[in-house]
Amino acid sequence: MTIQIYDTTLRDGAQREGMTLAVEDKLKIARQLDKLGVPWIEGGWPGANPKDGEFFRRLQLEPLTQAEVVAFCSTRRPGGLAAEDRMLAAIIAAGTKWVTIFGKSWDLHVTEGLKTDLAENLEMIRDSIEYLISQGKRVIYDAEHWFDGYLANPEYALKTLQTAIDAGADWLVFCDTNGGTLPQDITKIVDRVIQTVDPQRELQFGIHTHNDCELAVANALAAVSSGVTMVQGTINGYGERCGNANLCAIIPNLQLKLGYSCLHEADLIRLTQVSRYVSEVVNIAPNDYAAFVGRCAFSHKGGIHVSAVERNPLTYEHIDPLLVGNERRIAISEQSGLSNVLIKASEMGLTLTKADPRTRQILAKLKELEYQGYQFEGAEASFELLMREILGQTSTLFTIQGFQVHCSIATQQHHSLATIKIAVDGQDILEVAEGNGPVAALDAALRKALSRFYPELAKCHLTDYKVRIIDGEAGTAAITRVLVESSNGHHRWTTIGVSENILEASYQAVAQGIEYGLLVRSPQMCSLVDVK
Amino acid sequence: MTIQIYDTTLRDGAQREGMTLAVEDKLKIARQLDKLGVPWIEGGWPGANPKDGEFFRRLQLEPLTQAEVVAFCSTRRPGGLAAEDRMLAAIIAAGTKWVTIFGKSWDLHVTEGLKTDLAENLEMIRDSIEYLISQGKRVIYDAEHWFDGYLANPEYALKTLQTAIDAGADWLVFCDTNGGTLPQDITKIVDRVIQTVDPQRELQFGIHTHNDCELAVANALAAVSSGVTMVQGTINGYGERCGNANLCAIIPNLQLKLGYSCLHEADLIRLTQVSRYVSEVVNIAPNDYAAFVGRCAFSHKGGIHVSAVERNPLTYEHIDPLLVGNERRIAISEQSGLSNVLIKASEMGLTLTKADPRTRQILAKLKELEYQGYQFEGAEASFELLMREILGQTSTLFTIQGFQVHCSIATQQHHSLATIKIAVDGQDILEVAEGNGPVAALDAALRKALSRFYPELAKCHLTDYKVRIIDGEAGTAAITRVLVESSNGHHRWTTIGVSENILEASYQAVAQGIEYGLLVRSPQMCSLVDVK
Repeated sequence: MTIQIYDTTLRDGAQREGMTLAVEDKLKIARQLDKLGVPWIEGGWPGANPKDGEFFRRLQLEPLTQAEVVAFCSTRRPGGLAAEDRMLAAIIAAGTKWVTIFGKSWDLHVTEGLKTDLAENLEMIRDSIEYLISQGKRVIYDAEHWFDGYLANPEYALKTLQTAIDAGADWLVFCDTNGGTLPQDITKIVDRVIQTVDPQRELQFGIHTHNDCELAVANALAAVSSGVTMVQGTINGYGERCGNANLCAIIPNLQLKLGYSCLHEADLIRLTQVSRYVSEVVNIAPNDYAAFVGRCAFSHKGGIHVSAVERNPLTYEHIDPLLVGNERRIAISEQSGLSNVLIKASEMGLTLTKADPRTRQILAKLKELEYQGYQFEGAEASFELLMREILGQTSTLFTIQGFQVHCSIATQQHHSLATIKIAVDGQDILEVAEGNGPVAALDAALRKALSRFYPELAKCHLTDYKVRIIDGEAGTAAITRVLVESSNGHHRWTTIGVSENILEASYQAVAQGIEYGLLVRSPQMCSLVDVK
Repeated sequence: MTIQIYDTTLRDGAQREGMTLAVEDKLKIARQLDKLGVPWIEGGWPGANPKDGEFFRRLQLEPLTQAEVVAFCSTRRPGGLAAEDRMLAAIIAAGTKWVTIFGKSWDLHVTEGLKTDLAENLEMIRDSIEYLISQGKRVIYDAEHWFDGYLANPEYALKTLQTAIDAGADWLVFCDTNGGTLPQDITKIVDRVIQTVDPQRELQFGIHTHNDCELAVANALAAVSSGVTMVQGTINGYGERCGNANLCAIIPNLQLKLGYSCLHEADLIRLTQVSRYVSEVVNIAPNDYAAFVGRCAFSHKGGIHVSAVERNPLTYEHIDPLLVGNERRIAISEQSGLSNVLIKASEMGLTLTKADPRTRQILAKLKELEYQGYQFEGAEASFELLMREILGQTSTLFTIQGFQVHCSIATQQHHSLATIKIAVDGQDILEVAEGNGPVAALDAALRKALSRFYPELAKCHLTDYKVRIIDGEAGTAAITRVLVESSNGHHRWTTIGVSENILEASYQAVAQGIEYGLLVRSPQMCSLVDVK
């Protein structure tokens, strides 16, 4: 049986605090969702937001290939006519075949929110839906605050729903707008309501939940068990307050656990990728701990788990991570035992055994550095360099003698200059470069100094730079931890630097990023370091 | 009816990737949980981790006031005797009255994980529990992989449980160790199992869930509905992979929604505070979007919501945020309308009306700065300064003429020097200072220059510093966004700086932090800026 996925990342998801989407961002996300096979994409509220109007205009010029794009709007204003409503005119102008109209189910919202009477609200629902249908649209009706409204005044709530049905809405969506309903109440109410308004089971119902009780996913699944066949949610659960129902958890639960069909199998394995793509476009760091798609969702840290999962993944993994395009990870951390180090080594193509004294040496070095504030869980390239160094598989490409950075800032004038002295092949190189800021200047000087020896460096560049101030162990001063992500266009890797001085920490991370690029990721150098 | 909360933040929670807890951290958290009224605190696995042994020793010297601290361990090794088991000796040495022993329920784990036979596993459970009881302990039995084990081989799973019951365990806890079970299966299995092993309802059962399907909270609630009276989880849902069941969501759901009793009402209002305290101790940024306790859990951004919630909070809030010690927030963002600005102004004690042309001026300035990369949702002190400036409620305390930073780094030698030129009261001040790094040097120089005019600055200091690189609008270079948190010992506030140059952005944020401290938070200055 098919459950239809209705994505509202671009509309309700964009209500998340801290999220701002440009039209280009929205188009990128829509095209990804289309490619993923999501059948419904709610694009925005064209009447309320000029940016959303532009989004729909752009899609008219370059339409999606499979998905229905839906424009969103409220019912008309109280006391007016749908045919004269500015908002409804905007939704028609959006040019979509389908529109979603939300109406009030809860009497309190009619009297307190809209400041009108209960009869007029019914009229607004009827008039808006009938008008849109007369203009050739098909209508999804979002029954806002359905559960609170039904509990407060079931008779009136049912009247609003019946009005939408009679007016010709194709889909009726139960919305837990405040996110305060529990799964058991979702089940009870959806069961009873479908029984009441649709005893013959001829209509189509949907569910729209929010995560205010950390139950949005469970609530959506509960409604599906009660017979709804459309689930509304957002990628990564973005949304106002605590977020909307997270499609990246709902889809695998429905498809892999409950046997419903939502996406083609071949598309489901792109879920992790789409989750991370969207988080990149909206510029919100991915949640490493997210169910199914998080970087840590299938990672193993404790010693017992690690050795057991090596023997039989089923013992500690509820699904095969590949089904959603994710992967197993063995994390490197203070709690690491020898077996974690061995597994990590074999992932990196290094030969190492438990008996090898260097294995203990690596573990000891790891713990010493972690004590100083290093953390290799997010900087595996640095860990790989550390291992290769102890294994004698790196050659020293360059050594730093020192550097100086000089920044001068006056009103509207910036000037950053870095001088660096390094030794390459026994030769002392003194180099100087400018940059937008001190780190960019440092990076530029280092590359300039090295480029005559390693021309392939031209392909590597910095792609991300993160700084965190951490407290050292009690009594010592705060230290700065810098993570640098580098890329050669094919691979990305992350390196770490730690120091009391942000520039020193940055230098460490940048230099390691370059070293890793040259030693491990450069085809010319592979033979040198025995990559398998 | 009471549901007993069993916190395992210090044991299972500490398995979260990226988390490292010192003994002092663990003691701090245990004391907070004790004060909160959590009846059970699992402190660690003394046999597996020397740090945990130290934790229990410290607690023997300074015991908690109310909570039972529990030591955790596996059943004895296959083929040995409980009385000679090193791990069990360590748990006895921990000196707690209660111990939690986990045993294998799933035949696959016995044969694949432990590499022993099914009968020996039963013997391990019996021997371990009986031995511990003979040593005066009371035992909580964690049935590991209960649900997977029961589905795979119900007969054997029930035998393991019956063995634990017969051996004298006081509590029997169903663990969804891999986090792969759905609420409907939790209900079905817990119902059936309790019916089978305890038809008279004389035993005590617990539930332990993981968040791999984003269902840990729902699963815990489902088990409670089926009759378990102990819920295991962690503060903020910390834990391996996707985390453990989040007590900060479970407790309010049980108590405020379902009418169970978990904490005293007066303690429940400290939940938000405890959640944030723990996140500070473990040094993980709080999840702003967390249910109940997140900074955004009761925040309102969309224009419709904001005006409605002002009229009647019930319309858009599922509970009163004060019940869990949280608060309503009106967020400032690109989507802000005039009403958001007005509400924010009134929160800050500023008088402003919709008709006032300065209200529109503030909104326009806000949108312009957000376009440049500023984001005021996390930097409300900067937004307050912006408003006060437009309202003419700030006096210019100082203006920057320029600064220079010079860093010199040679092997093991750092040297950072900042020179700054500012104008205060028409006087040019040239000042120079050293620091651990360039930002510290800049901060020091600025304070030095200002301290002769504003001695109260001695009380303010930097408490956090965060850097993010963000892409500007298409075509422009990447820019750096710096957030600085300052404190005067009573209040904390956050300011923002944005520039292509990290030092320029840092300077902006640091200078604004000082300005805010002097203008808004200093008692001497309050009259000057008309704070209400």
